[in-house]
Amino acid sequence: MRDASFDAVTAVRPLGDGRFAADVHPDWTIGGKPNGGYLLALLGRAVGAVSPHPHPIAASAHFLHSPEPGLVEARIEVLRAGRSASQLRAQLGQEGRPCIEALFTTSRLDPDTKPHWEAGVPDPGLERFDDCIRIPAAGPNGLPVTIMEQVDLRLAADSLGFAAGRPSGRGELRGWLGLLDDSPFDPLSLIYAVDAFPPATFDVELSGWVPTLELTVYVRALPAPGPVQVRHEAHLIDGQRVDEACWVWDSTGRLVAQGTQLAGIRLG
Amino acid sequence: MRDASFDAVTAVRPLGDGRFAADVHPDWTIGGKPNGGYLLALLGRAVGAVSPHPHPIAASAHFLHSPEPGLVEARIEVLRAGRSASQLRAQLGQEGRPCIEALFTTSRLDPDTKPHWEAGVPDPGLERFDDCIRIPAAGPNGLPVTIMEQVDLRLAADSLGFAAGRPSGRGELRGWLGLLDDSPFDPLSLIYAVDAFPPATFDVELSGWVPTLELTVYVRALPAPGPVQVRHEAHLIDGQRVDEACWVWDSTGRLVAQGTQLAGIRLG
Repeated sequence: MRDASFDAVTAVRPLGDGRFAADVHPDWTIGGKPNGGYLLALLGRAVGAVSPHPHPIAASAHFLHSPEPGLVEARIEVLRAGRSASQLRAQLGQEGRPCIEALFTTSRLDPDTKPHWEAGVPDPGLERFDDCIRIPAAGPNGLPVTIMEQVDLRLAADSLGFAAGRPSGRGELRGWLGLLDDSPFDPLSLIYAVDAFPPATFDVELSGWVPTLELTVYVRALPAPGPVQVRHEAHLIDGQRVDEACWVWDSTGRLVAQGTQLAGIRLG
Repeated sequence: MRDASFDAVTAVRPLGDGRFAADVHPDWTIGGKPNGGYLLALLGRAVGAVSPHPHPIAASAHFLHSPEPGLVEARIEVLRAGRSASQLRAQLGQEGRPCIEALFTTSRLDPDTKPHWEAGVPDPGLERFDDCIRIPAAGPNGLPVTIMEQVDLRLAADSLGFAAGRPSGRGELRGWLGLLDDSPFDPLSLIYAVDAFPPATFDVELSGWVPTLELTVYVRALPAPGPVQVRHEAHLIDGQRVDEACWVWDSTGRLVAQGTQLAGIRLG
């Protein structure tokens, strides 16, 4: 069986001129479609091989077409190499068809900073990793979610109403995410973490696939070892689109990543 | 005096091959620097001249270099022309120097939709337009903010603590925004609206310029005529960077746009 660790499934092979080959893993998928945050993290790995600065601090992706698992090509271009930050363009394509267009700002995350002010950050919730319930590799809407066999994603008991057909109506899923081999999170796997949870709309009303149209991730700090705590929330379903916000704390309770996405949804 | 209406200051002149010339207005500035949301709206105008779909629904911009007021060039490229949505790349440069790199997803906003679920949207606050206080064209940090003479930006009384040296500490500014000639908002001016307010960090601690590094805007619906109500909030200041979220409601109380930004800040 192929190594499906996060580092292995985001590995890229340089082809020269800012081009990279990579293999999208067939098991990091939802209903056979690769997870969008996973693909953006894979692009981030290629960005890191080219960028003058080591860490993605902002990444914005627009999704054109979902690639199939298998061979993809990344193209990275440095737009500006600055003193404290750089900007890069990243494209993911398959068989010549553009799949993702993304922009990255990179910098160096200082391991010694402390938050200066954090009163605007929402509450992560009190649930401990061991008290949360690991979700299975089959979605409540019938889609196979094989990616859940590749990570340890656990939801708080009061976020699991959807599994019993009783969503809370708050549009909020809270829980924890761990990598299977207990490898520590880093800025790349944090990009994935921001898109790892089921649609927060499951806590409102079940639907089919909720395809991401746009995903923006900010990586705020280098994470401590251990699983990360996640709060994923929906705000508005309108015109068959929904926006979601995601918050990711490391095992010490520090906010290390956050993001928003706009997704399509067949409700309303 | 030159026409400084929103439509005039975002006008673009086609040069062929997806290139456009435009003039950044000297008065749509903060400390002499053009407002980032204004520049992204200007790019959105050029996008609209090329896009198969009329309305921006998601726009993500990374800021490389602040242009001076005056002549700029926009370059737009259609990445994908789809059935229900299209994606475009947009670049803004000045004298050959790249200033903004952005991605747009466009679609058609249906004037007849109603929100399907909106329980996740925060409270806009009860303040009416007439009860809010218009802020002057000089920032509390001494920067001239001439853009405040170009729009009617009003803050709720309890968001004005910073002006008296007594920020509330919540990191939240609420109020209203109107265009000076009472022209109605549209999806382009909504892009500006999401970046129009002073830094929400003024309600935490005063600082100098808070330059936007990344700005993502989602336009959710066509706005009704009249001014828009705005809630601008900061969440975390860490590593000399802050994230802010912005919510924009039309005069009927419908959420019509929202966005997030990551900005640099000299605090901590």
